[in-house]
Amino acid sequence: MELSDLGEFSLIDRISVGCLIRPSDVTAGIGDDCAVVPIDKGRSLLLTTDMLIEDIHFWKQDIIPELLGRKSLAVNISDIAAMGGIPKDAVLSLGLPVRTDLVYIDRFYDGIKSIAGEFSINILGGDTVKSPDRLVINIALTGEAPSDEILYRSGAKEGDIIFITGFPGNSSAGLNLLDSGRDFEAKDELFEFHLNPRPQYRQGRIIAESKLASSLIDISDGLLADLGHICRASSVGAIVRRADVPIGSLLQAYCEKYNLDPLDFALGGGEDYILLGTVPEKSSDILKGLLEKDGFAYFPIGTITCDLGTKLGNPDGSRSAIDPSGYDHFK
Amino acid sequence: MELSDLGEFSLIDRISVGCLIRPSDVTAGIGDDCAVVPIDKGRSLLLTTDMLIEDIHFWKQDIIPELLGRKSLAVNISDIAAMGGIPKDAVLSLGLPVRTDLVYIDRFYDGIKSIAGEFSINILGGDTVKSPDRLVINIALTGEAPSDEILYRSGAKEGDIIFITGFPGNSSAGLNLLDSGRDFEAKDELFEFHLNPRPQYRQGRIIAESKLASSLIDISDGLLADLGHICRASSVGAIVRRADVPIGSLLQAYCEKYNLDPLDFALGGGEDYILLGTVPEKSSDILKGLLEKDGFAYFPIGTITCDLGTKLGNPDGSRSAIDPSGYDHFK
Repeated sequence: MELSDLGEFSLIDRISVGCLIRPSDVTAGIGDDCAVVPIDKGRSLLLTTDMLIEDIHFWKQDIIPELLGRKSLAVNISDIAAMGGIPKDAVLSLGLPVRTDLVYIDRFYDGIKSIAGEFSINILGGDTVKSPDRLVINIALTGEAPSDEILYRSGAKEGDIIFITGFPGNSSAGLNLLDSGRDFEAKDELFEFHLNPRPQYRQGRIIAESKLASSLIDISDGLLADLGHICRASSVGAIVRRADVPIGSLLQAYCEKYNLDPLDFALGGGEDYILLGTVPEKSSDILKGLLEKDGFAYFPIGTITCDLGTKLGNPDGSRSAIDPSGYDHFK
Repeated sequence: MELSDLGEFSLIDRISVGCLIRPSDVTAGIGDDCAVVPIDKGRSLLLTTDMLIEDIHFWKQDIIPELLGRKSLAVNISDIAAMGGIPKDAVLSLGLPVRTDLVYIDRFYDGIKSIAGEFSINILGGDTVKSPDRLVINIALTGEAPSDEILYRSGAKEGDIIFITGFPGNSSAGLNLLDSGRDFEAKDELFEFHLNPRPQYRQGRIIAESKLASSLIDISDGLLADLGHICRASSVGAIVRRADVPIGSLLQAYCEKYNLDPLDFALGGGEDYILLGTVPEKSSDILKGLLEKDGFAYFPIGTITCDLGTKLGNPDGSRSAIDPSGYDHFK
């Protein structure tokens, strides 16, 4: 049996068995955006890592090295944000083809350092090795949070409101535009969502400090796929109201121009790096107020149900079942 | 200018500039075996990462997946040992060709889990992604230590004794045997040094707890190269007495059979993952006693000098300058 027959999420289940030698020392291991390890009575260490491989996760002709550097760290910051944590220290491994131009490496590091500066992250070292032909990037990032503020995928309860903190689908529309070579007047703005995502660390902190939310994740696999992760971890289901999913003006304009359905991008597209969470109904407006006070978006888009599986609520009141599988790296 | 013109260590110097946004929060960043970040008054977090790429760092036909898993984690444990720390939690990124057989992945994880169990390390998650053609492994490992016990590369002083905690050169002799396809009666035992290194965590803890040593590193680049790292970080030089470098019986037998000089392996070969350190002369015998009490080896092999550069002391009393450059990933 080969990896392609199994898929990413089944692989993770398969390899997770026996990974914890000291289970009592860990709050969360495999299966959330970050691992969580208590540091002392009130604080926990967060730990996350992401690998990006040339020609799989990025193509050198599509992204300038500064943005590649930024995005490499951004995806890790977003994992910390998805737990409500504060990003702290990064170690960076780079597999470099020997013919790599030094200016390319300098520009890549300029990108890393610029986003590290914005989020007050120290780059503490790493490993630089030779790669046969492709650039390979791995970042491991630590974070910290008061233990009682950390948000997991597993806390969603029946009746909770499902919310997102931005407009989903812009990143995948940007990728679609890039891949198709189509023309679009606001090309660069749409590319920007895909190539230079802004991790929502401050939103994550506001949600965490409020102690109102019951679960949180970042949208990396796609809205429905990531909602599926919350549902699976929380043993609940979800209904997303089609009409309440916010569509950004750029995505709307792009889809109108090419006769595409913006919901396909908003529900299925990945790499938005906005936050998706759940909150008890009575606290939803309070949380919305806290985020909006600081100028951040908050959209309630559905409700957690006791029936497993995710459904879409149509404007006519009917409900349609959907496949929340999302992007699977190996299928 | 390309990477191959510059080399690994110059690259590290080049990219290190501007990596610390909050320098006061860090005890050691780029340039030691691990980064060191204070956790609270008395304790520090250690952080290290290593990337292994197929056809650069390993060849699938040379190493079974269980041993590849073990070695991937072992090199990180050795970095923690080289600071005198206690290994704690690992996150593992794997870039997998889609045609990878699941049994291979299972066996690789069996290796990871077996060494994790021996060193009481929790595997807390990571990232599994598709790779175009080669297996890529990245592990980031945390550790912990009382802050006043941590050993750096930078503490060596003139007159200090240089010591090692094992027989150097066995790993590179194993690699030489593997590459050459030669015959050798104790083939498997010599391979074992290269394919299944045992990180010297307990030795590192004994040395750290004694608070006697002035510097410590693990031998990954080679004895002289790693001694060069200590000398450079400590702004000192070194003289290694040729006759005092211990040669293991297997290395001796292999070199006798093929008319090779065991010192070439012992001084120049890498990946031994034994510890190399310095200690004030008056404390050398005490440290030796502490290690030997628990059955561990301790060999004084030279002295730290105020003259920069590393020299070899010959049995006739003469001294010869040597090139401590060691293995450079990019040259």
